[in-house]
Amino acid sequence: MTGAPRRRIPEATVARLPVYQRILEELLRSGTTTVSSEVLATLARVSAAKVRKDLSLLGSFGTRGAGYDAAYLIDQIGRQLGLDRIWPVAIAGVGNLGRALARSEGFAARNFCVAALFDNDPRIVGEIVHGVVVRPTSELPAVATATPLAMGVITTPAPVAQRVADAMVEAGIRSILNFAPRVIEVPADVLLRYVDLSIELQVMSFYQARSSESTAMEGMPVIRSIGLSPPAS
Amino acid sequence: MTGAPRRRIPEATVARLPVYQRILEELLRSGTTTVSSEVLATLARVSAAKVRKDLSLLGSFGTRGAGYDAAYLIDQIGRQLGLDRIWPVAIAGVGNLGRALARSEGFAARNFCVAALFDNDPRIVGEIVHGVVVRPTSELPAVATATPLAMGVITTPAPVAQRVADAMVEAGIRSILNFAPRVIEVPADVLLRYVDLSIELQVMSFYQARSSESTAMEGMPVIRSIGLSPPAS
Repeated sequence: MTGAPRRRIPEATVARLPVYQRILEELLRSGTTTVSSEVLATLARVSAAKVRKDLSLLGSFGTRGAGYDAAYLIDQIGRQLGLDRIWPVAIAGVGNLGRALARSEGFAARNFCVAALFDNDPRIVGEIVHGVVVRPTSELPAVATATPLAMGVITTPAPVAQRVADAMVEAGIRSILNFAPRVIEVPADVLLRYVDLSIELQVMSFYQARSSESTAMEGMPVIRSIGLSPPAS
Repeated sequence: MTGAPRRRIPEATVARLPVYQRILEELLRSGTTTVSSEVLATLARVSAAKVRKDLSLLGSFGTRGAGYDAAYLIDQIGRQLGLDRIWPVAIAGVGNLGRALARSEGFAARNFCVAALFDNDPRIVGEIVHGVVVRPTSELPAVATATPLAMGVITTPAPVAQRVADAMVEAGIRSILNFAPRVIEVPADVLLRYVDLSIELQVMSFYQARSSESTAMEGMPVIRSIGLSPPAS
């Protein structure tokens, strides 16, 4: 907390904060301790004015000439994103994608702790993935009683996604990230986000299709998001 | 093409178009042929005004009382997104995430055809994943000569991401999607997008952290994107 009352932060800014954070961390690792809005803007492929606007919403204004203190800013962004606490995550569906997420170093680095894994395939149940035993999905309510679960990630096939979401909601999970290609329904007080890895390709095909028609790359998209660690193979 | 000259479409709209499309497809499959902006808005968790604004940018205005023709709108969005052609995609890094992408039905359904797979692990090279032989990354230029590759997806560990990106650029690839947790540099005329699966969790933790401090769920985020098919296991 900066001491100031919390401002309303637009979602577009919320989505850029982790991007700034990732860049700041890389800069800090390479020995850069202060960073200008211009450098941050170039690496994030947004305008410097947008960077300054975004960071001012956190109460961070930088120092004229010197720029922003990288370590302080990382800390400040982390607090805004609620990364100053541990978030226990349950993943339902332990296929390739579920495994990639369970093993992602990016999750752990952000205080997202994979606390439970569920699958209905008897060949997968009982397996230990990244130190966590895969349980049958039917045990979700029982596990949730013993282990606090803040967030649920659905990486199951589409036909069972709604059933899994229902079980998560019943188990008290209030934030669900759905990778299954199915529109699901949850109560209004449950956060629900859908992720589609093909959407990024679609955004690129939009721009590439246009760039092959005109010579200008006008409107090239900004970085949306960064940081999943592919699992160590 | 609608016949009208192409309007400048804001990136936020571009990112919502695949969401509308996915919802329209589900509605169409369930027998709904026309849809109001209100229904589309509720399912996409945005305002009806925003839906109407977005679709008007495509030259689609719906019919008062009847709403939008779902099939026509799907077609129109697809053309805008450049999905009226096949996009050959190369994936470098055949770990869990690379496999999940290679096998994703969502990719194929959107005309993204996985045309080449690359990995440096001798235990993985030669393997056939979803009908495509994994080649050593060093063969990227040779493969690109024989097979047109429009887009590159990097799912390698971070340390080799820049090298892979360089090889992709040299092979003529002009759109790169980077999942590796590393900021990479490409020429200005190359589209570059970063994806981080943990960013969605960070956006959720932002809202969940706030909702535990206040009782209101004000500012609950919209659907960002939907549709990856988890691989059939």
